Amino acid sequence: MSYASQMLDTYDTSPIDARVLAAAIDAMNDCTQACIADTDADLGDESVAMMVACIRLCLDCADVCTATARVTSRPTAYHPSVTQPLLNACVAICALCGDECEEHADTHPHCEVCARACRRCEQACRDLLAATQEGQS
Amino acid sequence: MSYASQMLDTYDTSPIDARVLAAAIDAMNDCTQACIADTDADLGDESVAMMVACIRLCLDCADVCTATARVTSRPTAYHPSVTQPLLNACVAICALCGDECEEHADTHPHCEVCARACRRCEQACRDLLAATQEGQS
Amino acid sequence: MSYASQMLDTYDTSPIDARVLAAAIDAMNDCTQACIADTDADLGDESVAMMVACIRLCLDCADVCTATARVTSRPTAYHPSVTQPLLNACVAICALCGDECEEHADTHPHCEVCARACRRCEQACRDLLAATQEGQS
Amino acid sequence: MSYASQMLDTYDTSPIDARVLAAAIDAMNDCTQACIADTDADLGDESVAMMVACIRLCLDCADVCTATARVTSRPTAYHPSVTQPLLNACVAICALCGDECEEHADTHPHCEVCARACRRCEQACRDLLAATQEGQS
Repeated sequence: MSYASQMLDTYDTSPIDARVLAAAIDAMNDCTQACIADTDADLGDESVAMMVACIRLCLDCADVCTATARVTSRPTAYHPSVTQPLLNACVAICALCGDECEEHADTHPHCEVCARACRRCEQACRDLLAATQEGQS
Repeated sequence: MSYASQMLDTYDTSPIDARVLAAAIDAMNDCTQACIADTDADLGDESVAMMVACIRLCLDCADVCTATARVTSRPTAYHPSVTQPLLNACVAICALCGDECEEHADTHPHCEVCARACRRCEQACRDLLAATQEGQS
Repeated sequence: MSYASQMLDTYDTSPIDARVLAAAIDAMNDCTQACIADTDADLGDESVAMMVACIRLCLDCADVCTATARVTSRPTAYHPSVTQPLLNACVAICALCGDECEEHADTHPHCEVCARACRRCEQACRDLLAATQEGQS
Repeated sequence: MSYASQMLDTYDTSPIDARVLAAAIDAMNDCTQACIADTDADLGDESVAMMVACIRLCLDCADVCTATARVTSRPTAYHPSVTQPLLNACVAICALCGDECEEHADTHPHCEVCARACRRCEQACRDLLAATQEGQS
């Protein structure tokens, strides 16, 4: 059981579903980690010039996931005007970064891992967006 | 001349206006700093229970400004699908945090400084959004 | 298997033991998450004034763990002059934050979770320090 | 007058000299900004393979400066066991990153700007270390 889940278990997070929220936070933290490590691996690649687009997207993805994880990990005062565009930015960068990493997945195992982390994070952020929009209606 | 300006002077940042971009990055970095310091000052307040909403907003504001400054400081590969919602999130949290800090401005000088930093950042992010939307059309 | 482990499996991280490194990165990421969530929970406490020391330590702990996880997740160019003091700072803040959280563990379940995350991170950073010092000798 | 200075003016930061502290925070924030922007510029270089060491050091430098600026911007509860190794890590990475950037300064104007930011930050952190050690004795 992740620390995000353990912490949210001690909380009342309504109207947000704690499982959906914890899954999103875990996916964002994992995606941050994968993108930071993938940047390091890409920089060590013999043909680093081919990996520049991937490095740039991983840098952006790690930063957006970090901020979104931090903000959504403070659910007590939830501001949809902030969280919704932030989650939309996270969905967008995870989609772009996942697409780019997937292009290199056959030849670069680290990009294959990173692509999976991005796909999962994109979906988890979409799920959280859907859950919070339901929560408001 | 700020380091953001000095760095952008060595670059081709078209179609984004380098002055508008540097002003936004500077405002986001200053707002991050003001919010982090304001959190510390609020926590030292005798009536900290009155400052909880302010602390929460400052924590969110610092994190969103940090990520937005990092992403916009890498303008070479500019992805509007990421940057525009991120800037919208930044505008939204700066507006909320600026409003809250303004409520305490008369009695808490640190909140007065922070309110100014939030207002300036909100406007600078709106200017950058406008400039990048023109750049695309 | 964590994303840190999956990524490090695609790497040559010698002379650092990849399992010790992955365990430290995982512990730092978990500690960051626990401290950010604990801050939010503390701020929601009825007697928030009693939790100020805990909030301050959690804020510092999250920031130091974040930076240390990022730097150690780029092991290809490893600089002991940077990584060793950084890990020492991480050990020190995890010890302080773990002690403070433990004081509230009986009455605040979120502090009990956070204390465990800090203790585990403190030990994992000590293990990584020991492993890298062996690696150099 | 920087926001760090404006905020610290509203505080009692003794036994730390507020001017020395504000100068260090400003230098760390500027160095973070220079390193993030320099990474983007290096990635755009035709001979990016020559810039890999520079990119790695800039990534580490930005992360260590960010954490050190955040922790020292919360001076109310000052823990030398954390702040001193953190500042030592900051001095070490600024020295390494400044040396590397200086090697490219003649041909890469962005590295020249970044080298200056690193040198200034290294010195400002040394000054803060000296000031806090005096403050304790």
